[in-house]
Parts: sequence; C-alpha cells; structure tokens
Amino acid sequence: MANEIETVEVAALEALCAEVLQAAGASAAHAAACVKILIDAELMGISTHGAVRVPDYARRLRSGGIDPKAQPKLERRAPSLARVDGANAVGPAVGLFALEAATGMARETGIAYVGCRASNHFGAIAPYARLACDAGFAMIAGTNASTTMPPAGGKALRLGNNPLCIAAPGAAGAHFILDMAMSVAARGKIRAALKAGRPIPEGWASDQDGRPTTDPAAALAGFLLPFGAHKGSGLSMAVDLLSGVLPGARFLTDVVTWVDNATEPQGTGHFFLLLDPARLTGREAYAAAMARFRELIKQTPAADPSAPVLLPGERELARRARALAHGVELPAALMEELRAARR
Amino acid sequence: MANEIETVEVAALEALCAEVLQAAGASAAHAAACVKILIDAELMGISTHGAVRVPDYARRLRSGGIDPKAQPKLERRAPSLARVDGANAVGPAVGLFALEAATGMARETGIAYVGCRASNHFGAIAPYARLACDAGFAMIAGTNASTTMPPAGGKALRLGNNPLCIAAPGAAGAHFILDMAMSVAARGKIRAALKAGRPIPEGWASDQDGRPTTDPAAALAGFLLPFGAHKGSGLSMAVDLLSGVLPGARFLTDVVTWVDNATEPQGTGHFFLLLDPARLTGREAYAAAMARFRELIKQTPAADPSAPVLLPGERELARRARALAHGVELPAALMEELRAARR
Repeated sequence: MANEIETVEVAALEALCAEVLQAAGASAAHAAACVKILIDAELMGISTHGAVRVPDYARRLRSGGIDPKAQPKLERRAPSLARVDGANAVGPAVGLFALEAATGMARETGIAYVGCRASNHFGAIAPYARLACDAGFAMIAGTNASTTMPPAGGKALRLGNNPLCIAAPGAAGAHFILDMAMSVAARGKIRAALKAGRPIPEGWASDQDGRPTTDPAAALAGFLLPFGAHKGSGLSMAVDLLSGVLPGARFLTDVVTWVDNATEPQGTGHFFLLLDPARLTGREAYAAAMARFRELIKQTPAADPSAPVLLPGERELARRARALAHGVELPAALMEELRAARR
Repeated sequence: MANEIETVEVAALEALCAEVLQAAGASAAHAAACVKILIDAELMGISTHGAVRVPDYARRLRSGGIDPKAQPKLERRAPSLARVDGANAVGPAVGLFALEAATGMARETGIAYVGCRASNHFGAIAPYARLACDAGFAMIAGTNASTTMPPAGGKALRLGNNPLCIAAPGAAGAHFILDMAMSVAARGKIRAALKAGRPIPEGWASDQDGRPTTDPAAALAGFLLPFGAHKGSGLSMAVDLLSGVLPGARFLTDVVTWVDNATEPQGTGHFFLLLDPARLTGREAYAAAMARFRELIKQTPAADPSAPVLLPGERELARRARALAHGVELPAALMEELRAARR
C-alpha cells in the first residue's frame, strides 16, 4: 500500500481534514482556516505543505503546543499599520485573520502592513497570495521558521528557511505568485541521494564544521545551505526582520522547533504587506501593463522547446484548476492516516 | 599608470565629481544628488557603482539621453502612496526626490510606497538605504534595469539584473543593509576567466542557445544566469513588477539600454517602501530586538575562524567609515579622466 495512490474529490478531502482538526480540539472556524490554506497548497502541488501537515497540526493541537481555544487579536497602530497577537492559535487562523485585516485596511488606504507575533507554522504562502490577488492586491509576505541553516560563513544553526512571497494580480485569476524558501535543496533530496549512493551537487550543504560537502551522509550530519550563499543568507535574515523583529515576534534561534518541542508555543512571526495597483496607477493601466508583462515572459524562446517558459505560480494555479475539476491524488497511506485521525 | 592607485580625500573627490557633472549640464542640485549616491557607493566599496560612473553620467547628460533641465514631479495618490514622474532627470535626483517624499509620508503615517517612472540608472541602492535607516525607517526598495538575463528556461534576454534592497536601522548607524542583484556572477568575472584560460563554474552562464556552459567564450556570447535558477529569475520579475509595472514605468525589454542608445531615455522604474519600526512596535522594543538579532548572527561560530560571520552591510559601512577618515583609493587613470572631464 506504501506507494498506492488514491484520487479524492476536493470537497471530500476538505471535509475529512476539517473533521480531523476538530477532533483534535480546533473550532470549526480554525479547522476551516487550516483546510483553506493546507488543502489549497495541496491542490497547487505544494504537497510538502499540504494534506500531510493535517495530522501534524492535529498532534500539536492535542499536545497543547498550539492553543485550540486561542483567538488572534488585532492591534491597529495607524490607518495602514497593524500588529496581530496570534495568542498561540493555529497558524493559518492567525495568518488569515491578519490577511483579512490587511485587506480591509488596504481597501481604505491603498496600502497596509500587518505583522503577526505569537503564531505557529502557517502553511505555504502561495494560498494567501491567491486570496490577496483575487481581492485585487499585490502582496509581499513572509514568515520566519525554526532554524535549519547557518548564515553564510557560519557553522551553527541560526537561520530559518524563511519563505518570501511576492505576488501581483493577473486577469481572470492568472496571478503572478512567487513563493520561495531560502535553502538550495530540501533535506528530503539529500536523503534520497544517500539512499541511491549518489553524491549531492556542490552548494547544497556543508558538513558539521561548515565546510562544503558533496557527501550526503556528511550533509545530513551538517547543514542545509542558503541558495546563492550570501544572497539567500541575507534574504533569510531580511525576512526574519520583517516578520520577526518588526512585529515583536520571536526570531532566529528563539523560534521554537515544531518537532522537538511538542508542547511549547513556537512564537513564529509573519507579515503581510498589501498594495492596491488600481489606486496607484489606475485599474486599466495596470491591467494593460500586467498583460504585456505576462506576454513578454511567456513568449521567451525556450532553451528546451518541450518546456515553455512559465511565470511564477503558473504551474501551481494550473494544477489547482485540474484538481478542482478532477480531484487530487494522494498516497493511500496518508488517506488512511487521516481517516483514522477523525476519532 | 594603468595600475597606479591614488588616495583622495572624500570632500575633494565629491567636489571634483560635482564639477564634472555640472560641466555636462547638470544643475548644482542634481550634481549633488549624483555625488551623494555614487560617491557614497564608492566609499562603501561598491566601486562598480561608484566614481567610475561619473564620466558615464556626464556623457549621457551631454548626449541628451538624460535631460539635465528636467525636474521630477510628485503625484500623491493616498496618504501613504505616491508616484514620481522622473521626467527623464538624472537617476539619483529622481531616487532622492522619491526617497524624501517617502520619508515625509512615512513620518506622518508610519508607512509609505513611492514608485518612480521615466527615470534612469539611479546607482546602487545601499546609499539610499543608509539614508532611510538614518531617518529611522526600515526599507524595501528596488529598481529595474535593461535586460542582461533570460528567465529560467529561456534563451533570450528578458530580465534585468534588478537589484532588491531590504534594510533596517541599527543603533549608532550599524544598519542592516542587504543590497543584492539577481545574476550569479558579473560579466567582468567571466571576461577574467577567459583571459586566464580558466573554465567558469557551472551555473554562472548559458550559451546563446540557453544551454549551461563552463566555457567563458560561449558564456560571453550567451547569457548571464539568475542566481538560484527559478528563484533569482522569479525575484527579478517580482522586482520589475514592484518598480516597473506598479508605478507605470517601462519594464522587461522596454527599458532602454544605457550603452547602446546614448540619446534615448531609459524609462527606468524604481520603488521605495518605508516602514516605521518605532510606530509599529515601539522605539525601545525595536532597539532591543535589533540588538539581540545582531548579536545572535555575529556570535555564530565561523567556518573559517579568520572570517567572522557578518551582517549584510556591515563590511560596506566599515569601509565607508575608513574612507571618511583616511580617504578613498581610486585608480590614477580614473582620477585623470575625471580631472579632464571638468571642461
């Protein structure tokens, strides 16, 4: 059964996951928030942040690491500036609460920054970006995370894989959505190389003394490396400043790991920065510019004719449309786990 | 004389460069703006965007590619949102005008986005970041540029090296300043490899058919590559959306190259996004968090004990302090060129 695949209707998957989260103590509203973010990521093909996280979230709700009764609170600091105290609620409930506040503020003023503290893992950012773009806003957003990397030149964990997302609305839902984490490669790829007895490419990882390595075993005992060396390292810090330091959240090594500390709040920070293109440059001028931008990129001659040049988010949004029409494929073992977790 | 170095006092260098720019038609105010940005970059050790650009700017002012009489105009769209029509004025005059407007707006509301259109090359972003941080603001800023790279998977020029800067104020001028462009390596490094008969590392460049190459000659006939493949490619597009599409500037292949079209306006776009940490989280809470952030990074054990882990901008700000105290070293040939260009 390990490799069996099951095709599930999206509505059925959502209902199942909501049931699992409510069985773990989440309110109907918070379960719906988690489903909205995690299952949307699954539909987009971001499976690492999809349905597989639902049992994780449920375990952490049960262990008390996340407070199932908590309600995030908004603290408005200026017409376009606010903080959210996540109160250790489940991450997507905090994230969606903040995004909704930011959307309301940006509707009034054309711009908004909302920073969150005392939150938890809040899923991939692309699903939030889709919502912001559907509402007509460009978005810059990010989150910090527990540490997995040293800074460039270092040999101790200091940086999270802190993803940064930059998005802008396109016509008929064809949004630009760049959602990128800061490591060159995921740990899973290094484990796969070890299993296959292959070396890993230079630049993926360092050993535990911070020296570059192509040996997957040394890499697994060592550190993931930020992409672009100083660039990815600096970007990870920059995202931490915007999502951790600015809203008064935890940052760097103070963010608690999800795995090792099942009962302690993570203290994660996020930020959402929205801009209204219609307010700034006019609805029609923006739509025309965005259409030309897409066309210029998509008409780039491809290095491999069978792989046309895509815009960030294009593949994910196409996968989502297919999943909504035809259902989503999931490992049968995961479906079993979800069904068992309803009680 | 080609390799001779001259040590110049900063004030003397600034006066000389201002004279060169005024001789080319710039007003005293616009010459001062260029000096403020270009020479500050020189002091920080960003020599590619330093004094060497002054003769370039002067030539373009003389050729009419930049309008020496133009004045940028502010168009306020909302209390925290504005556009600047650069009117084809010299880039640093447009950039500093926009930054000043953004600073004034963010002082009132705690946040501001100002986007510029009809501008030109505006220098490195780090000098603007230092000014924003000195005024107490965190900054996200970027600019587009004429094309030097294909998008990931493409084999035609579509993307500029569009730098992104994220900065946050530190105590006593010790600011966090990340200012990064999107290519893996500069063209100059590939030319050096060709001269030395060495191959270039994988990932720096592709040949003219978009295939990866380590042959410097094929690389020079081909394309620079964005760092982190899809990540740098996506970031370049994202910066172009924020600095080109949003303010109604040119973008992608529509930005005119500086080199090939001496008389045509570039139509470059920039953006400055400021946030007031004191307004958001309180002056003392922010200062304490920032101090802890710096300490956690700087105390990271170094992979090479002789190369301690630094924060982005730390090296540049130290160089600037040294240059202000002891003068700046420049090639004697460049000093000759500047002296000759005063008439």
